[in-house]
Amino acid sequence: MRVDVLTLFPEMFEGVFGSSILGKAQGRGLVSLNTVNFRDYANNKHNTVDDTPYGGGGGMVLKAEPIFGAVEDVVGRRAGETADGAEGSRPPRVILMCPQGEPFSQRKAQELSGESHLIFICGHYEGYDERIRQHLVTDELSIGDYVLTGGELPAMVVIDAVVRLLPGVLGNETSAVRDSFSDGLLEYPHYTRPVDFRGMTVPDVLMSGHHAEIDKWRRQQSLLRTLARRPELLDQAELTAKERAWLNEQPDRLARELQETAAGGVGEDAGE
Amino acid sequence: MRVDVLTLFPEMFEGVFGSSILGKAQGRGLVSLNTVNFRDYANNKHNTVDDTPYGGGGGMVLKAEPIFGAVEDVVGRRAGETADGAEGSRPPRVILMCPQGEPFSQRKAQELSGESHLIFICGHYEGYDERIRQHLVTDELSIGDYVLTGGELPAMVVIDAVVRLLPGVLGNETSAVRDSFSDGLLEYPHYTRPVDFRGMTVPDVLMSGHHAEIDKWRRQQSLLRTLARRPELLDQAELTAKERAWLNEQPDRLARELQETAAGGVGEDAGE
Repeated sequence: MRVDVLTLFPEMFEGVFGSSILGKAQGRGLVSLNTVNFRDYANNKHNTVDDTPYGGGGGMVLKAEPIFGAVEDVVGRRAGETADGAEGSRPPRVILMCPQGEPFSQRKAQELSGESHLIFICGHYEGYDERIRQHLVTDELSIGDYVLTGGELPAMVVIDAVVRLLPGVLGNETSAVRDSFSDGLLEYPHYTRPVDFRGMTVPDVLMSGHHAEIDKWRRQQSLLRTLARRPELLDQAELTAKERAWLNEQPDRLARELQETAAGGVGEDAGE
Repeated sequence: MRVDVLTLFPEMFEGVFGSSILGKAQGRGLVSLNTVNFRDYANNKHNTVDDTPYGGGGGMVLKAEPIFGAVEDVVGRRAGETADGAEGSRPPRVILMCPQGEPFSQRKAQELSGESHLIFICGHYEGYDERIRQHLVTDELSIGDYVLTGGELPAMVVIDAVVRLLPGVLGNETSAVRDSFSDGLLEYPHYTRPVDFRGMTVPDVLMSGHHAEIDKWRRQQSLLRTLARRPELLDQAELTAKERAWLNEQPDRLARELQETAAGGVGEDAGE
């Protein structure tokens, strides 16, 4: 996969693209991550990429011309580079990061991971000239309903979510993290050494060696945590009829179990 | 405000903390952004920060000890530094970035922007030992329901959303972006020069100079775009009874207006 990011702040991406999973994936040749400063495509003497909005009002608007020029240059270069590749004929996805976009989801990450070329457009401060939306982009994405300075951090988030799904990128060390989402529930609590940390201990069941009991405890903890924190997820989660009945019938149990979870089997609350 | 980020990948933050709004805010002394590699707090000969989970299963779990040690060191240092400051007595918020956390929102960003010290804990690949959750953190946050490699990008997103709300950080250039969210609707389309870009033109109303008509068009576009893309936002948005009636009564109008918006008043579709 090739990823091009159009941004006025390419330096923001250096540390992120060079580290961890993204750095390793690039090192193994599984993905090529590039930044393009679209100010280089401003065809005016002051290299301006934005201007005041027609109709008045505050703020600045990113001009269509530099964005069109940068995308076309990236696509053109790529067409030449992959002339002998089978995937070269598929047009790239051109993704605009903006608050008005489709809410990003794991399903969208899966979809994008099947592409061979993604181009991200990251604005900063400003709005985008509507003609970019209408005639250039294939997808508009938002990572959440909060106000950020620009599209750079959202683009990094989407790129990370997509690249880690590419074949060969993840090793075994991360399989558990992926599995934890597959049933639509929040993860159960984890514990590792030491058994006793400043008086805070590990629940007895996890030390019992009784795998059926451990599985049951973990499943119940997942169900209870999801009910307590994100009950709307339960509608979509894969639960047995027995589990749904268990959750519905025992509202009092929730309070009790959560209290026990919070106390964590600790004799004294040594944490703070 | 002081922000400390506990991470195994401090290099990921360099470009982001040094650029744009975050870089400027630091330069003006409005915020101090620091990273702490919590591997420095692993008190064992191999400097390991994770271990296998009690009860078995795949994946690794971040140990309690290095995280507790790093947080306490950060808090201790800070207490010394601000001994003569009035805000020194307020305990820091210790924020765990994790998929099980409270969904991050603009409201949460507002809340956190009133604090004087935020500490972010970013795990990578692994789960967290539950005792970190129970006895150390004050907040657990998730930026969305998608799977990311670690807590670093989510921490950057939260930090950007919070820091830009601090007094003095934003200049006038960004006021429009903030205003665009205040009414709970998606933004209306923006246009800037040139009027004609490759045959794609600006809607006539924006060139009319008739401000009441322009305001009306923009409001309608916001309403229609929100209805088309994020209808659930309309429940919370501040609409007049007349506007709600207008939206409810004209489903056909939606399709027609969206078509017009998509065509953008262009004689020929010159975009692609």
